[in-house]
Amino acid sequence: MARAPILTPQSEDFPRWYQDLLNKAELADNGPVRGTMVIRPYGYSLWERMQAEVDRRIKDAGAENAYFPLFIPEDYLKREAEHVEGFSPELAVVTHAGGKKLEQPIVVRPTSETVINEYFSKWIQSYRDLPLLINQWANVVRWELRPRIFIRTTEFLWQEGHTAHATRDDAGAYARQILHDVYEDFMVNVLAIPVLLGAKTESERFAGADFTYCCEAMMKDGKALQMGTTHELGQNFAKAFDTTFLDAQGQQQHVWTTSWGVSTRMVGGLIMAHGDDEGLVVPPRLAPIQVVVILVRDSDGAGEVARRLVDELLEAGPRVKLDDRVDTSFGRRATEWELKGVPIRIEIGPRDLADSKATLVRRDTGLKETMPIDQIVSRCGAELEGMQTDVLAAAVARRDENTAEVGSISEVIDATEAGFARIAWDALGPEGEVALAAEAITVRCLQRGDGSVPEGDDEDGLVAVCGRSY
Amino acid sequence: MARAPILTPQSEDFPRWYQDLLNKAELADNGPVRGTMVIRPYGYSLWERMQAEVDRRIKDAGAENAYFPLFIPEDYLKREAEHVEGFSPELAVVTHAGGKKLEQPIVVRPTSETVINEYFSKWIQSYRDLPLLINQWANVVRWELRPRIFIRTTEFLWQEGHTAHATRDDAGAYARQILHDVYEDFMVNVLAIPVLLGAKTESERFAGADFTYCCEAMMKDGKALQMGTTHELGQNFAKAFDTTFLDAQGQQQHVWTTSWGVSTRMVGGLIMAHGDDEGLVVPPRLAPIQVVVILVRDSDGAGEVARRLVDELLEAGPRVKLDDRVDTSFGRRATEWELKGVPIRIEIGPRDLADSKATLVRRDTGLKETMPIDQIVSRCGAELEGMQTDVLAAAVARRDENTAEVGSISEVIDATEAGFARIAWDALGPEGEVALAAEAITVRCLQRGDGSVPEGDDEDGLVAVCGRSY
Repeated sequence: MARAPILTPQSEDFPRWYQDLLNKAELADNGPVRGTMVIRPYGYSLWERMQAEVDRRIKDAGAENAYFPLFIPEDYLKREAEHVEGFSPELAVVTHAGGKKLEQPIVVRPTSETVINEYFSKWIQSYRDLPLLINQWANVVRWELRPRIFIRTTEFLWQEGHTAHATRDDAGAYARQILHDVYEDFMVNVLAIPVLLGAKTESERFAGADFTYCCEAMMKDGKALQMGTTHELGQNFAKAFDTTFLDAQGQQQHVWTTSWGVSTRMVGGLIMAHGDDEGLVVPPRLAPIQVVVILVRDSDGAGEVARRLVDELLEAGPRVKLDDRVDTSFGRRATEWELKGVPIRIEIGPRDLADSKATLVRRDTGLKETMPIDQIVSRCGAELEGMQTDVLAAAVARRDENTAEVGSISEVIDATEAGFARIAWDALGPEGEVALAAEAITVRCLQRGDGSVPEGDDEDGLVAVCGRSY
Repeated sequence: MARAPILTPQSEDFPRWYQDLLNKAELADNGPVRGTMVIRPYGYSLWERMQAEVDRRIKDAGAENAYFPLFIPEDYLKREAEHVEGFSPELAVVTHAGGKKLEQPIVVRPTSETVINEYFSKWIQSYRDLPLLINQWANVVRWELRPRIFIRTTEFLWQEGHTAHATRDDAGAYARQILHDVYEDFMVNVLAIPVLLGAKTESERFAGADFTYCCEAMMKDGKALQMGTTHELGQNFAKAFDTTFLDAQGQQQHVWTTSWGVSTRMVGGLIMAHGDDEGLVVPPRLAPIQVVVILVRDSDGAGEVARRLVDELLEAGPRVKLDDRVDTSFGRRATEWELKGVPIRIEIGPRDLADSKATLVRRDTGLKETMPIDQIVSRCGAELEGMQTDVLAAAVARRDENTAEVGSISEVIDATEAGFARIAWDALGPEGEVALAAEAITVRCLQRGDGSVPEGDDEDGLVAVCGRSY
């Protein structure tokens, strides 16, 4: 009798597969307040690894971490007209505190441009103080009508970078540097997710931005997920908060600012970009556990062999976990690690051990090979490298297969049933964008013909990448 | 003419010295909403180092990180009677969100026992699921009447550990394990702050706890600062949230829980335990920058020498920063690093360089020595180790000098002008505690005669450590 599937198959109901996986792999639960989430330890360990990798790249780009308050006076939001219009419908408002009604309502930050620009105004005096490059890791709150765990939650965790520069060019260059050197590099080389980079159309820009750049990924159901954005904010917030500096010629000028962020949404992207009917598939460079050594039964010295192997593996480099819960059936434990997407399982049981062998199983390909124990360490290194490459290559192939070059709006509608459609922006335009919106299709980004990122909005020959999105 | 002091001298006005230092060392600013704070990059780098060291110890103690929501339904708080009574006056309440009035008000977490116990109830089925050891790094909000940056702010950053156990003994042992292996070890060996460990009296316990253990430190003005606490919560929250498990005998039982936390308050403790009239003094093991190499003037090859020295130092291990801002006067930069408490400054200027020498300055002792450059790396290692030991020894000596063994309440009142007073708990008792409260003196902790931590509250021969506190 065939085993009943643990997860709803992806082909049957992708969103339900996602919910099943969140639950069975113990990634996250719904929180008690609608739209919030509880991130369980394994889910959080994925986020911690993302934080470590992104944080290192942010520091390499010269930005320093700081922390700004959760609570923002309501009137701050109102100083930048587009910003307040964009965020007002999503705000959570504190009206009572310390047992009293507050004189002025307080907003729970939906993002921190306003409060950070207020402090930039205090800290920046002259061009010597520029660029000022700040980042914070924080929680933010946006009241969501259609919440989905990790993808769109009322509260989410993120980093938000905020920088001030002396010129428009400096600000633009830095916004694109973060896009490439931090976000693209992390997403491609660690998450193994091939992202398309480009500029948002005017209608999809961040509220208060002159230009928004983005990383767009294709999920396994062909839908798009915006994985991260960087914004050129021009002098909009600088003027609203009067952030000025004395330039080298002795003139007072407003600074040019940027902001940029990635969030716990990336955990959702990881799940949907690589997961399969057996569970998560975590690329080795991200994996909190790269190799799990499963002690099948603790007899005939198997326990000692397993512990020694774990020590040897740890010495060689990988992040390793020993699963010696021999009171739980081997099958159940193997299924659990499969669900959690651990790249490599090593199974050590008395039978193989009699021949000084153990079994290596690779999560993405299903490769299962019984081999001499003294070869395990070096094979783990090779298979981890191979899996990182193969998972990315598979995602690239999937995306390319499901991307069509088209010439008309009706073709865009057809092609986006399966994935992305690329169409000349001249052939689509803002009117075409409105027509697509009626079909729940959006322009994910505008690219140059060669796939590179346009700078500013006066370029010819742009291509619109269209898709249905999360 | 003597230089005007940059900071108000400690002896003149200690609280003002603290405020001056926060500002001049660019540690933190007041936030726009009363009682909140903006943690500036250098202040945040101190917190990041604290996080890294505490997080490693928490993981060594077997707890895993997770994340629970900021927003808690108001009725959760009401389920544990003492808990809601303790926290109600401090709550911030969200009444409107997404443009509408909410049906049930939402509380911004002041601490997370309630919401975490709700999920423990879902996750725990049998004794095999115990102990369940969870930690989270998060922001919490408590409306403060007398805010002081880092010490008592409306919003602060902390870790809160929450664990569930099968027996009272297991829970108690774990609460004390965290106290010793995580908090005491970190505070003594990294922060170089000699903490007294003990139990809180009944009146000072956490709202909802059976027993509270604490780490108490003496600041340079002789006042006490509570640096961290762990709580035995008994079955109080387990009963309020019906968190039960099937024991090995097949009986349903309520779990026994603990909680424990340290916060950004520790940054305030660090400042006030070690700082002097010249600024912060950061113990080397904590210091985000252990050695700063100051290029006095970039001529005669000094820049190249400085950069090579930085590389050699980095290779040897220390966290090093090159200060090559030669446009800013050397004196101003030296003062800045002194204010920031960087353990060692290396000054490289053309004059010393002609003799292949550089000058090493140690922050705590003021040691200033010009030595051959090829000796700098090894001397840095030795001086960093020496400073870590010396800073702790100085703090121990200060505390011991300012601690008196006394026998009466009037002696407690006198002795706590300068520091701590130790008195037999039998001679003080709850009535004496009330009398001291009128003088703004509290029992910081109860210890056994040998200075160890009492378990439970039925012990004889306890000593009460009394002090004025932050």
